Amino acid sequence: MRGLLVGRFQPFHAGHLAVVRKVRADRPEELLLLGIGSAQASYTLDNPFTAGERFEMIERALAEAGVDGCRAVPLPDIDRHAMWVAYVESQLPTFRHVYTNNPLTRLLFERAGYAVESPPLIDRARYEGTRLRAAMAEGDGWRDGVPPSVREYLLEIQAPARMRLLVPHGGRVPSGAR
Amino acid sequence: MRGLLVGRFQPFHAGHLAVVRKVRADRPEELLLLGIGSAQASYTLDNPFTAGERFEMIERALAEAGVDGCRAVPLPDIDRHAMWVAYVESQLPTFRHVYTNNPLTRLLFERAGYAVESPPLIDRARYEGTRLRAAMAEGDGWRDGVPPSVREYLLEIQAPARMRLLVPHGGRVPSGAR
Amino acid sequence: MRGLLVGRFQPFHAGHLAVVRKVRADRPEELLLLGIGSAQASYTLDNPFTAGERFEMIERALAEAGVDGCRAVPLPDIDRHAMWVAYVESQLPTFRHVYTNNPLTRLLFERAGYAVESPPLIDRARYEGTRLRAAMAEGDGWRDGVPPSVREYLLEIQAPARMRLLVPHGGRVPSGAR
Amino acid sequence: MRGLLVGRFQPFHAGHLAVVRKVRADRPEELLLLGIGSAQASYTLDNPFTAGERFEMIERALAEAGVDGCRAVPLPDIDRHAMWVAYVESQLPTFRHVYTNNPLTRLLFERAGYAVESPPLIDRARYEGTRLRAAMAEGDGWRDGVPPSVREYLLEIQAPARMRLLVPHGGRVPSGAR
Amino acid sequence: MRGLLVGRFQPFHAGHLAVVRKVRADRPEELLLLGIGSAQASYTLDNPFTAGERFEMIERALAEAGVDGCRAVPLPDIDRHAMWVAYVESQLPTFRHVYTNNPLTRLLFERAGYAVESPPLIDRARYEGTRLRAAMAEGDGWRDGVPPSVREYLLEIQAPARMRLLVPHGGRVPSGAR
Amino acid sequence: MRGLLVGRFQPFHAGHLAVVRKVRADRPEELLLLGIGSAQASYTLDNPFTAGERFEMIERALAEAGVDGCRAVPLPDIDRHAMWVAYVESQLPTFRHVYTNNPLTRLLFERAGYAVESPPLIDRARYEGTRLRAAMAEGDGWRDGVPPSVREYLLEIQAPARMRLLVPHGGRVPSGAR
Repeated sequence: MRGLLVGRFQPFHAGHLAVVRKVRADRPEELLLLGIGSAQASYTLDNPFTAGERFEMIERALAEAGVDGCRAVPLPDIDRHAMWVAYVESQLPTFRHVYTNNPLTRLLFERAGYAVESPPLIDRARYEGTRLRAAMAEGDGWRDGVPPSVREYLLEIQAPARMRLLVPHGGRVPSGAR
Repeated sequence: MRGLLVGRFQPFHAGHLAVVRKVRADRPEELLLLGIGSAQASYTLDNPFTAGERFEMIERALAEAGVDGCRAVPLPDIDRHAMWVAYVESQLPTFRHVYTNNPLTRLLFERAGYAVESPPLIDRARYEGTRLRAAMAEGDGWRDGVPPSVREYLLEIQAPARMRLLVPHGGRVPSGAR
Repeated sequence: MRGLLVGRFQPFHAGHLAVVRKVRADRPEELLLLGIGSAQASYTLDNPFTAGERFEMIERALAEAGVDGCRAVPLPDIDRHAMWVAYVESQLPTFRHVYTNNPLTRLLFERAGYAVESPPLIDRARYEGTRLRAAMAEGDGWRDGVPPSVREYLLEIQAPARMRLLVPHGGRVPSGAR
Repeated sequence: MRGLLVGRFQPFHAGHLAVVRKVRADRPEELLLLGIGSAQASYTLDNPFTAGERFEMIERALAEAGVDGCRAVPLPDIDRHAMWVAYVESQLPTFRHVYTNNPLTRLLFERAGYAVESPPLIDRARYEGTRLRAAMAEGDGWRDGVPPSVREYLLEIQAPARMRLLVPHGGRVPSGAR
Repeated sequence: MRGLLVGRFQPFHAGHLAVVRKVRADRPEELLLLGIGSAQASYTLDNPFTAGERFEMIERALAEAGVDGCRAVPLPDIDRHAMWVAYVESQLPTFRHVYTNNPLTRLLFERAGYAVESPPLIDRARYEGTRLRAAMAEGDGWRDGVPPSVREYLLEIQAPARMRLLVPHGGRVPSGAR
Repeated sequence: MRGLLVGRFQPFHAGHLAVVRKVRADRPEELLLLGIGSAQASYTLDNPFTAGERFEMIERALAEAGVDGCRAVPLPDIDRHAMWVAYVESQLPTFRHVYTNNPLTRLLFERAGYAVESPPLIDRARYEGTRLRAAMAEGDGWRDGVPPSVREYLLEIQAPARMRLLVPHGGRVPSGAR
């Protein structure tokens, strides 16, 4: 059987890694699907990285941490919440458990009859996507929030420079790029 | 001949019912189409209910009030305002009158040559979707704002719990659900 | 409770009317939803009429036949079959019975747990959309296949001329129109 | 005032050029908009060239022929014929005349109140897109059907090799590319 | 060879005209493509005018100013930034230079290998779309910010009345119109 | 580094497995991405299985065959071939080699600068999707064409019954289901 953990992973940070480790340790017999939400989005304040870049971060971080049994899967938005569970089911192999701390994700999957669990969040103030993205535009405050291999990758793709471009525009898509 | 009244009906409240009654009373010979706008949306702060749930509210409220001669029709957004009237015309049987208090809806239909009327709004402060949705997340202040059958239905589908999930996130779509 | 009958109704013909009559007679307490499939399509060989025109045919034919308790609802395609039932559920008030002679529609609704019934088709050779559309381009052979009010409406909107334009192009969308 | 001529221009051939010349000669005071239909399509049997490539062919052919007063404009399909005129109007500056030999394009624009003219087609058997595309996959039979500058451009982008890839697959999108 | 300047041109103002003049003067041998971004949008606070209306403003302003060698092209959004350059390339004839003052547009084109230049902005405080749109709703403060022919056109299409409808709603799409 | 093999895998058959084995054996150090093309499609003659079902077949067949180092990834169509490589790049971690026997996929990736290889096809007449799908509707002729675990899974989801529904309709989407 399989489990499903959905996130946007912008970026894949230490909090994500801790949750994945915990779920894998609790249910080692279960393959863990990592759904990359909003996979169509990139180069915006909330979604700076492409699904491919986020996939790359996940692969690197899990290899570095020696965590196996995971499968990253990009999930582009469909923008129709009432159909979201049916959509996820159509794109993934069958799964039984859903892991999430998001109340709406919990509601939608529970209505569809899934067992939903909320893994305890570790040091949430520190490992939080919004904070890390803002910090990336400002200085080095993000570096301890992500696994070493993700830090290296983010520097490789010049993520801080990208975030600096996006932040001053308040996350608004620039006139020429949309 | 027919008339058209467009709204999002999130939820279908007492103000909507009063307008429908008035229009039906003024033009009893005219079938009234009730276009359910943003029909693709649900489970967001501004659009908590599916088009199907809104359709259900309308059916129940009109049956309860003994109002006939109405037809609810879901209208998913097309996100191209300049084509909106042509879109509505392609989905509905012909209609002559348009009833709206929304200035842009008025502008778009008038440009296309329709007779547009603005039914007087009854006690708008009390019957206003934004206020009712916020109240639903907080307590019982919404209960008098909707017809009895809609109140019962909203409790049946646990609408207050849904709104409580949506409000704290500021209406933002949660990471896992889009 | 409600029932659902889905079709493209291109056009709404005598066979459709017979099925609607039968379903209404068998379950008079049940409101019957008439889902207008492929509602986004029009001016093609397979879908010559807009959803609005089909809505109009249904309204006129049912009024003429004295059949009440029906609600026509346009359903634009979503082009993802695996999500189709979830889509229909999100757009319509709850329904219990599904009426269809289409084996795939039957399969999809049965997988989702619905009771599906196949109303006996009356004189199918004569009342068949494909045949009627072809006949409309060629002469008068279609006239007996539709209720009188639909015949009158089709002449009013110059349906035979429209079909003649569409047939020679083999149903292909013309270069300039797509 | 302006005129509008819509085509897919796959490729822009000598017949197109002759029509453009004629329209420009008849109404020299009128700017002629050349709508490039199905602008989203490319690398299929019916639409081998991107909108950009077709735009390039038009620019080169008109410069070579000394025809001015034209403006090429890509028009991606919207796949809703009933809204097609409203769509075109929303994308282009106002125009008065429409030039087309396509009966459906004529019908849609006439219903919207436009003056539609059908420029006489010159040697249609020879200058016909379908024939030219097939010929391009087979040998040199297409070379005389296009203006010299278009011929040169098509060779430059290796159009015959592209057509050979597309034709054997019967125009079907290959498994890997869609 | 060609150059590309992308903007939303809501409206086409004196600052835009100054940049176009400068680019044309610097590289008179280069055709300048003017990409009209967000071409699908209209009747919103940020995008009040249709692509067609913006096209019309550009044509009139350039004719009035005696600037030739430009080609306006509507570019509907694709909402996938990572694919944006590939999208623009598929819709336009080949171009070499890109002119933009938007840092994200610059980043995306530079990553794809283009030479990007930032034309000096003239009197930016005065010629700025957001300010002009707000001013249009309030009084006459916008009139000096646009070329005379654009001013006349905006009055012709009753742009101030349109802006007044849009501003009080805070740019939110009205319930009935989406 | 990684490689990419794209297919629709309708179903994942013995020929696919042989190719995957070969690629993995030739480049054991390279992770192999298996792009599931047309991931949005299902319940049609050409695409009977959902992306999730195809994902499941791949997982089971590779586990059974003891092949590791692969990652299945659903890729919904974007229907714009000229942007297809940019799309794939935005969804996947970086890859260097592309494996395909499809000439158009080869062309598109080569134009973008990728090294493309065509793995020798083993016994193509026998292992061919179109033939297997047709055989599944007719009898047992498909059973030897797929790995044992895929055979078992296809029987589990009643694939032959599904194919029998789809084939008589010639692959056309039924009226009620689109």
